[in-house]
Amino acid sequence: MKTYTASITVTLRRAILDVQGKAVEHALHSLHMPALGSVRIGKHIEVEVQAPDTDTANDLVMDACKKLLTNPVMEDFHIALVEKAAGVPA
Amino acid sequence: MKTYTASITVTLRRAILDVQGKAVEHALHSLHMPALGSVRIGKHIEVEVQAPDTDTANDLVMDACKKLLTNPVMEDFHIALVEKAAGVPA
Repeated sequence: MKTYTASITVTLRRAILDVQGKAVEHALHSLHMPALGSVRIGKHIEVEVQAPDTDTANDLVMDACKKLLTNPVMEDFHIALVEKAAGVPA
Repeated sequence: MKTYTASITVTLRRAILDVQGKAVEHALHSLHMPALGSVRIGKHIEVEVQAPDTDTANDLVMDACKKLLTNPVMEDFHIALVEKAAGVPA
């Protein structure tokens, strides 16, 4: 069994108005930063996964995303998996 | 002037208890997904930046992170900059 670290990025779909992003954009402009715009705010989730291989780990995370972590109607997600280096065996 | 897309990942520092992550972890276990654990939840922010070069763009985003987007006492952040492909010139 290996340990993987999954980084999940959840973003609102492009077609959906991001009110939180708009608020931050206005705040940036109020702080005299006109060079920054089109702000979109999403979630970043890090999870540790115990799985025998990368494919199984990916399936487990995908399942969690669909069942709990994201709203598939409004959000897109992207998963990046990295295997954790094994510790020195006892 | 070039347009860059900055992806900012804001995470709570390791030493700080992530209650939202803990709640999600409990929910995952309740949904019979015991292979997933150590959940940490952060923010993912996408911003478009107008700047003459990558260094200036990075400085602008760094400044926005320090002044508005993150809480430097509790959070770490990471910036990834990608230059947007220029459109066909008129």
